Amino acid sequence: MRKVAILGATMTKFGKLTQGLDELLLEPSLTAIESSKLSEKDLDLLYISNMLGGELTKQVSLGTMLADELGVKIGADRIENGPAAGASAIKDAFIAIKSGLFDLVLVAGAEKMTHMATEVISEYISYMLHPVERMSGATLPSLGAMLARLYMKQYGVTSEDLAMIAVKNHKNALNNPYAHLQKMVTVDNLLHSNEMEKINPMVADPLRRFDISPISDGGAAVVLAELEVAKKYTDLPVTIEGFGQATDSLALHERPVPTDINAVKEASKQAFKMSGISPDQIDVAELHDAFTILELVESEDAGFFEKGTAHKMVREGQTEIGGKLPINTSGGLKARGHPLGATGLSQVVELVWQLRGEARGRQVPGATYGFSVNLGGFGSNAVSLILKRGD
Amino acid sequence: MRKVAILGATMTKFGKLTQGLDELLLEPSLTAIESSKLSEKDLDLLYISNMLGGELTKQVSLGTMLADELGVKIGADRIENGPAAGASAIKDAFIAIKSGLFDLVLVAGAEKMTHMATEVISEYISYMLHPVERMSGATLPSLGAMLARLYMKQYGVTSEDLAMIAVKNHKNALNNPYAHLQKMVTVDNLLHSNEMEKINPMVADPLRRFDISPISDGGAAVVLAELEVAKKYTDLPVTIEGFGQATDSLALHERPVPTDINAVKEASKQAFKMSGISPDQIDVAELHDAFTILELVESEDAGFFEKGTAHKMVREGQTEIGGKLPINTSGGLKARGHPLGATGLSQVVELVWQLRGEARGRQVPGATYGFSVNLGGFGSNAVSLILKRGD
Repeated sequence: MRKVAILGATMTKFGKLTQGLDELLLEPSLTAIESSKLSEKDLDLLYISNMLGGELTKQVSLGTMLADELGVKIGADRIENGPAAGASAIKDAFIAIKSGLFDLVLVAGAEKMTHMATEVISEYISYMLHPVERMSGATLPSLGAMLARLYMKQYGVTSEDLAMIAVKNHKNALNNPYAHLQKMVTVDNLLHSNEMEKINPMVADPLRRFDISPISDGGAAVVLAELEVAKKYTDLPVTIEGFGQATDSLALHERPVPTDINAVKEASKQAFKMSGISPDQIDVAELHDAFTILELVESEDAGFFEKGTAHKMVREGQTEIGGKLPINTSGGLKARGHPLGATGLSQVVELVWQLRGEARGRQVPGATYGFSVNLGGFGSNAVSLILKRGD
Repeated sequence: MRKVAILGATMTKFGKLTQGLDELLLEPSLTAIESSKLSEKDLDLLYISNMLGGELTKQVSLGTMLADELGVKIGADRIENGPAAGASAIKDAFIAIKSGLFDLVLVAGAEKMTHMATEVISEYISYMLHPVERMSGATLPSLGAMLARLYMKQYGVTSEDLAMIAVKNHKNALNNPYAHLQKMVTVDNLLHSNEMEKINPMVADPLRRFDISPISDGGAAVVLAELEVAKKYTDLPVTIEGFGQATDSLALHERPVPTDINAVKEASKQAFKMSGISPDQIDVAELHDAFTILELVESEDAGFFEKGTAHKMVREGQTEIGGKLPINTSGGLKARGHPLGATGLSQVVELVWQLRGEARGRQVPGATYGFSVNLGGFGSNAVSLILKRGD
């Protein structure tokens, strides 16, 4: 039974960057290849994760473009699964190595966004929604707000609870030099200051600016290798122990319990089954906090906390570094940033750094198992991954 | 060693259609599932092939959309590799079954194009070119024209030779009820009539209208299954014996010999190596004739004819049904039509029909091995597939 390991894994700093989309793919790819102690010609296959390359930068066929820039002639495709393209591409690379047909696969993902107006970005991102919801005027933040309102009422969650998630993720990002937003915030700043409406205005009630991830440029790259091959290049491979992927109604209004993200439940269940471990064995998790409310819901639906209790864990500090389950040590989408096609890869990069003990000021001591969930669409497609230190 | 077979394989009629992109994915999917004697819930995984869904129809995350419409919750992604997305998605489904993780995979591909102005389509399609070539004013037809001019001069190929390819493919399409263009043409009509400039105007010298595939709407779907699983559902599985994928310089001007399509050479060599057969064993081939000149070049670079001799085979009728190697019995991109994301799948559908003896008026008697090549970009990415009747 072939096993799959990760060699090089890296990312550009996320933020408002000067590089073009091609550079955001190329730079981390070169670094990931070099840090794997490989050369470009060792690679067998290439997957690109990107959501809106055509719409935002007038470039498709990014697989071919990156292969060309790397000077290789190997097969290359682009994977698109909304903002879960990154984890989907990792999934496809994992499968390719499992198949026995390929030993070394590069996955690179990027998105170039900040050169466009927010309204334009917002329109393009809504292409992943159900056409009827979109035509009714729904946007991502408005769907997030509807879910948040329902969930908060049902479980007694407050705006302070949501703000605490932003505060935690911003605090983690202060120790992540790759993060887009490196700014300390407090619940008082965000909700109780005189300047609240200025620094943290309402976007879609009850979601304020700091409940929503920023628009970011960025790229990330991961080299996957068959485990025995990987051992020739590293003494500390990180293995992919399991993955899962599931879909759900494209439209939020068609889900029987709109506060449940069933795609996360199902994808995570699959990943735990494949890995043979249980949620309480996970030491560090990267969740898809495009909205603060999503971190709460996903932490429950992935199996870490009972439904309706995640906000209590946040209040107790259990999701901070040093707590029971540190979540989004990287800063998450909220503070690391959210360049769509790169996001899933950057989650994996953070887990690799944590599991190798390379996360410096934000290290979770002795982390052995890492977990990520990456959402495509508004909860309509989820990819969960479980990584392990060593083999 | 797991083998991969094809169960249901079908397509919509290609042409100027009333259906939307979602229907162009759903209709053939339902037919392919039903003709496989499966129900939707038997499926393990879903891949969508589509090039310009966001640009042309404001919809991405098509994997999620189709899963939702099929009423399943399985993993689903979109594959984009320019107009080779279809063959790339088949490749990924093949790998997924080989991996042992999945038994039954649906691949569906579609493109909705004819609602947009040709100039707009042309702009979007050029997103797959090298930015420098695009900014210099190059379009797909102009690159095709440059390649044609060089090739024709080098090998003594005439406009009549190119027209004969269009004539053959249109003739084949007359017997393909799924073809977009069902119209008999002759070399005399196209090149020697008084109305030549009207019916067959110059587009990019030396390529005239009938040297170029039309803009089409269409969808196609293929169910792949592990061979032993497939045998539970059919007595006549068609197996995928090999595939190959290779890339080349994104820019045509960077290729040392611009008349060679090295990606086709390399992808085809890989496919023949994996299948263990040689080009002279192929009974029927579907080549990517987005331009007539490409059918000539690909038939050589795939290994069927010596370089510079393909036009002689065309003159001798060797690529017609009844000849040594019938090429594009479906009508090819030229006459079956070219709805980008569906094209690679429609090539596979034609091969399946031929290998099962279901190609009716255009049947190649006793066809055992079929071959297809699907191009992504202008020769910068190629995927070759080899199919076999029975196991």
